[in-house]
Amino acid sequence: MINVGIVGYGNLGKGVCLAVEKAQDLNCVGIFTRREPSAIKPIINVPVYKTEDLQNFKEKIDVLILCGGSATDLPTTTKEYLKDFNTVDSFDTHAKIPEYKKELEEIANKYGHLSAISIGWDPGLFSIARMLFGALLPSGNDYTFWGKGVSQGHSDAIRRIDGVKNAIQYTIPKEEAINSVRNGENKPLTARQKHLRECFVVAKDGADKERIEAEIKNMPNYFSDYDTVVHFITEEELLKNHSKLAHGGFVMRSGETTTENKHLLELSIKLDSNPEFTGSVLTAYARAVAKLSKEGKTGVVTVFDVPIKYLSSLAEEDLVKGLL
Amino acid sequence: MINVGIVGYGNLGKGVCLAVEKAQDLNCVGIFTRREPSAIKPIINVPVYKTEDLQNFKEKIDVLILCGGSATDLPTTTKEYLKDFNTVDSFDTHAKIPEYKKELEEIANKYGHLSAISIGWDPGLFSIARMLFGALLPSGNDYTFWGKGVSQGHSDAIRRIDGVKNAIQYTIPKEEAINSVRNGENKPLTARQKHLRECFVVAKDGADKERIEAEIKNMPNYFSDYDTVVHFITEEELLKNHSKLAHGGFVMRSGETTTENKHLLELSIKLDSNPEFTGSVLTAYARAVAKLSKEGKTGVVTVFDVPIKYLSSLAEEDLVKGLL
Repeated sequence: MINVGIVGYGNLGKGVCLAVEKAQDLNCVGIFTRREPSAIKPIINVPVYKTEDLQNFKEKIDVLILCGGSATDLPTTTKEYLKDFNTVDSFDTHAKIPEYKKELEEIANKYGHLSAISIGWDPGLFSIARMLFGALLPSGNDYTFWGKGVSQGHSDAIRRIDGVKNAIQYTIPKEEAINSVRNGENKPLTARQKHLRECFVVAKDGADKERIEAEIKNMPNYFSDYDTVVHFITEEELLKNHSKLAHGGFVMRSGETTTENKHLLELSIKLDSNPEFTGSVLTAYARAVAKLSKEGKTGVVTVFDVPIKYLSSLAEEDLVKGLL
Repeated sequence: MINVGIVGYGNLGKGVCLAVEKAQDLNCVGIFTRREPSAIKPIINVPVYKTEDLQNFKEKIDVLILCGGSATDLPTTTKEYLKDFNTVDSFDTHAKIPEYKKELEEIANKYGHLSAISIGWDPGLFSIARMLFGALLPSGNDYTFWGKGVSQGHSDAIRRIDGVKNAIQYTIPKEEAINSVRNGENKPLTARQKHLRECFVVAKDGADKERIEAEIKNMPNYFSDYDTVVHFITEEELLKNHSKLAHGGFVMRSGETTTENKHLLELSIKLDSNPEFTGSVLTAYARAVAKLSKEGKTGVVTVFDVPIKYLSSLAEEDLVKGLL
């Protein structure tokens, strides 16, 4: 039995709870929160503690699953927890991963722990596809498409505009771009050519909608490089029609082995619940971290380092017999 | 620089040649054949030797890429080569893999070599998808579809029927089955429901076509469990329209994290040349075997054991920076 602790109880923490409960080889020791524990009613039957209580669990937890956010939580908290525990996290600020990895490596090696970072579907499953496809088909290009799904960061950016009461932003891959890749056209595609950004905005009473729409469409980094569509709706409509956490996407590699022979490799995912699937991925990697740590491995690993057999609850012989 | 030797020069051996030549970190020491070397004119500029000459290359080759067939070649030859070399092969008789693995493990451990077995796209890339998808989404079912592509074993079986001069058999996944999985219906699918078998047959002069068609359709294991369509064509038509080695397929997993939230994971590949892509996969795993062997690893590995970073010619930092 592998004992896990779950740190943080937002949407992702709930997803991890569901996945851990389904896994017969995993036991959830507790949920650890910065909130008042009594305020939390977990969806599974498991005790809730304050994060300060973690010091009493050093010998009782094989791996901590960190369910905080990449922007503020993980960069500071992972370093602290890694001193006392093995960890898994979903750090997803792509540009900062090398630096984050390096910082954690020092701590992991010093304290003899193992940390799996940037686990989820992107980074995570999609990274596996990009790396694997590129190694198996070196002459070619890869394309990642996200969506249709809610982009939390972009939704937040709209909500910060003056006069906006609430907003949801969907990233939508463009059919013509997907088809171009599938047809082996192998051409470079700009951000604008690959994705559409669709925004559903609730304006405050009396707010200037034209100004809000212009501010969204011209927002640098977030929207100005994309075709952006803005719809103004009521708060009721937003809550009724735009509360789902569905997401998905594609990784494609189009390449050739000779000029005549072209090949297309494609991974696609369609998720009803982004946090529940991400939680399931984190849970599989928590299993891997516990097993690898038991074998004596320390340091920091990503999806590129972990042999996939460690993710399964099945015995190696059964994997070879049933799935190879 | 990693030095590889290529054993066997059929379609797969040619595919490996192309892939090795493209890889800047790999050097092809030679092609080794049971045929008369002077009869072979390789598509890349590389010497051809007799397989008996391999004994002179023990210190000059880091890994041997075995391009023989699973039915007769690999079960005997891999054991011999593994005594003197690290090896990679594409052993694909699924039911016999556990036994094959066990036999090779004894030799690999005794002689201190490393062997990667059952490398290609199925077993291989598709096995990765089946195993990974199952670990990340444990509640669900997976479905593997092959085609459209030529099934060599089934084509051979038709050719052995009395009165048949030549034949090609295509395995074709059924759209309605694929759509059922994509729609999350998650129902069990029989062989007949998943694939159609289409046969193009050249009959000998005066042969009884009705009898041939009946013999094909009723052949146990090969055709009797499938919907099979038989077309009689001329030898000219066969050579003109059915000489391509294209193939492809899908691995899908349809599952759920809660009863409300369903998810679909799908890997699909579309190959203009089956042997060229398979050769490219073997080459990437040859690189991994050479690197792992240099780190001291011995024994037998499958795609479940090899961290994917070893497949790439890129440095680990560049993988993390560019692809994670």
